[in-house]
Amino acid sequence: MISDFNEIMSLNVKGMKKSAIRELLKLTNNPDIISFAGGLPDPKTFPVEELKEVVVEVLDEDSDKALQYGSTEGDKRLREIIVENYRSQGFDIQLENVMITTASQQGLDLLAKIFIDRGDKVIVGLPSYLGGLSAFNAYGAVPVGIEFDDHGMIAEKLEEALAKMKANGEKPKFIYIIPDFQNPAGLTMPEERRKKVIEIAKRYDVLIIEDSPYKELRFEGEEQKSLYALDNTGHVITMGTFSKIFVPGFRVGWIIAHPEITDKFVTAKQSADLCTSPFVQKIAAKYIDKGYYKKNLVKTIAIYKEKKEAMMAAFDKYMPEGVTWTKPEGGLFLFVTLPEYMDAEKLFVKAIEEKVAFVTGNVFHCNGEGRNTMRINFSYMDKESNLEGVKRLAKVIKAEMK
Amino acid sequence: MISDFNEIMSLNVKGMKKSAIRELLKLTNNPDIISFAGGLPDPKTFPVEELKEVVVEVLDEDSDKALQYGSTEGDKRLREIIVENYRSQGFDIQLENVMITTASQQGLDLLAKIFIDRGDKVIVGLPSYLGGLSAFNAYGAVPVGIEFDDHGMIAEKLEEALAKMKANGEKPKFIYIIPDFQNPAGLTMPEERRKKVIEIAKRYDVLIIEDSPYKELRFEGEEQKSLYALDNTGHVITMGTFSKIFVPGFRVGWIIAHPEITDKFVTAKQSADLCTSPFVQKIAAKYIDKGYYKKNLVKTIAIYKEKKEAMMAAFDKYMPEGVTWTKPEGGLFLFVTLPEYMDAEKLFVKAIEEKVAFVTGNVFHCNGEGRNTMRINFSYMDKESNLEGVKRLAKVIKAEMK
Repeated sequence: MISDFNEIMSLNVKGMKKSAIRELLKLTNNPDIISFAGGLPDPKTFPVEELKEVVVEVLDEDSDKALQYGSTEGDKRLREIIVENYRSQGFDIQLENVMITTASQQGLDLLAKIFIDRGDKVIVGLPSYLGGLSAFNAYGAVPVGIEFDDHGMIAEKLEEALAKMKANGEKPKFIYIIPDFQNPAGLTMPEERRKKVIEIAKRYDVLIIEDSPYKELRFEGEEQKSLYALDNTGHVITMGTFSKIFVPGFRVGWIIAHPEITDKFVTAKQSADLCTSPFVQKIAAKYIDKGYYKKNLVKTIAIYKEKKEAMMAAFDKYMPEGVTWTKPEGGLFLFVTLPEYMDAEKLFVKAIEEKVAFVTGNVFHCNGEGRNTMRINFSYMDKESNLEGVKRLAKVIKAEMK
Repeated sequence: MISDFNEIMSLNVKGMKKSAIRELLKLTNNPDIISFAGGLPDPKTFPVEELKEVVVEVLDEDSDKALQYGSTEGDKRLREIIVENYRSQGFDIQLENVMITTASQQGLDLLAKIFIDRGDKVIVGLPSYLGGLSAFNAYGAVPVGIEFDDHGMIAEKLEEALAKMKANGEKPKFIYIIPDFQNPAGLTMPEERRKKVIEIAKRYDVLIIEDSPYKELRFEGEEQKSLYALDNTGHVITMGTFSKIFVPGFRVGWIIAHPEITDKFVTAKQSADLCTSPFVQKIAAKYIDKGYYKKNLVKTIAIYKEKKEAMMAAFDKYMPEGVTWTKPEGGLFLFVTLPEYMDAEKLFVKAIEEKVAFVTGNVFHCNGEGRNTMRINFSYMDKESNLEGVKRLAKVIKAEMK
């Protein structure tokens, strides 16, 4: 081994931390522990029988291309399907707007690679998705957090931050927003707020990143128009993924952007992994073309809706006064706020003793706040475990209350 | 679209170029053109029937894990297989030395991410693999090229460059070597040279990157011990991939390194794509466990050996005096040197008119040299096309000769 290994690493890597969530998840591998910590889909939603049929068809009909290198932009049929689907949602896009990614984490990585030099500022939510924060951090970005209310990022606070930066001669590289059933908060931004945010971003000439992995997982309430469709002038980059609405194990996502921006993503992806597996892309395209995707999504939504409702009922029943939580209309998460004097990290240790796990909310806050908050996943555990887990968690919280 | 898009990109992306090869390949999509330009495996080597069987088994037995998120390190069974295989080649390694990558291009990308700050030097061959050069360039690396002889990188020239850098208070981040059937040169470094290079690297305290995607594709001559196994002190990072010895469409590769280095790769990969598809990893592991890999490799080698020999015979028969070429003992490529006064880029235009394509050698030279060289792939086209293509190419070269 070389003598100065810890010195010769890049500055960015010196600043990298292993994902707190992934390290926490290791602690919760014990099967006795009821874990609300991950963000995993329920394997019951995986369309195994349909996939067996589709995979054999792909190998019978198209193996020369499915098993070969593919284009960096992605499989043409899959991109066409994505264009059709988003056009029906009001996106003014063509094939050239779409690039396939090795799931949405790669979209976030390439986004950072394209835009961020060490020290550049980016605007994120308080709280925001940890995978986004780490991807930006991996290129030396400095996150600027914007406060949330029940509708997500507060437009006035966003404008304040932009005005302040402008006065200092600064401009952030982008505004990172998860508008639907936000991870971790579980909140959805209503159309009026979306319009306000777009208007501000345009006025300050800043790109918006719309990361929307859960949009299709709506249990109730009204679908909100995408920021991309509300803009349609190329000011928004939208990211999507099959991880939560089909299977995460394929690692297939996409970005939708102005063709000039998509072109930069293609260049950056060439040196990152050449192309996303054509094999899984072709399976995904055929699965959708055969109508299985829509059918399975209905089933998936029903499963998660039932789990969410059971969890909400358990929270109502068991949680002591002074604890509040978000009421998500979809997605995988709810966010819990404990009394201000409580510390979720300390609680975590007691919770593990009681065999229940969660993610502490501070890891989602780029400013280190949120010590009295936690993220709860309701998609992975079965209904009974969700109920039992909430009971255990409530017990731990009560014991720590003043 | 924002007003200053071309200004707000990162410095690294401003310096990125689209891959010359991938852009060239687009020109050669015309099916009338006999293309020696790509580096694609022959689809006849793809084990389609075996895969149909294996995929159904994976979905029947292990769908909950195959379709779910996986660990960043990679599938445990697949890593075990890799450990067993390399241990039998003299690698002193355990599970903790191995991480799965989204094919070897991701290995190169993460390598650059871990070690390179803008302006850092890296040592590469003259010529070297374009995908490596672009991955390093994407993080602002400054490549220092070392001359080749028939055995690859010249040890004395390497030492000279390191001594010169040391005198200037500089140290490169690593030495990038493709020791077996090098892309593009088709040359293999003999054991004695490997030992010399390791000795020099250790003396100057610099890491060696051993990128070896073709090692298993040996048609003749004696297998050379890996640099990793010749060292076994953690001074070498080895990269491998299934792309050329199984299928490229799965996008599965691996890195083998000292555990402290592997740990940094894991951290960097977490924010790059979380994990490589567990689905394709489990298929690959089962395919190997069932004994199909070894059987299919024998078939693959036979196919490529026959193509290589046919091509060599055609070169002998048709090429005019003054043209020389390497005689690869394996891999996918040979490298052609034209008389010094010739320019392969000009030749390329004429070649396309005659419906034959190649890659100009200058793109593999970080110092812009190699204008009179070209890379020829013999793995993708069938034997007859290889023969006809060499005939056409020889005709074009003759017409340009003085």
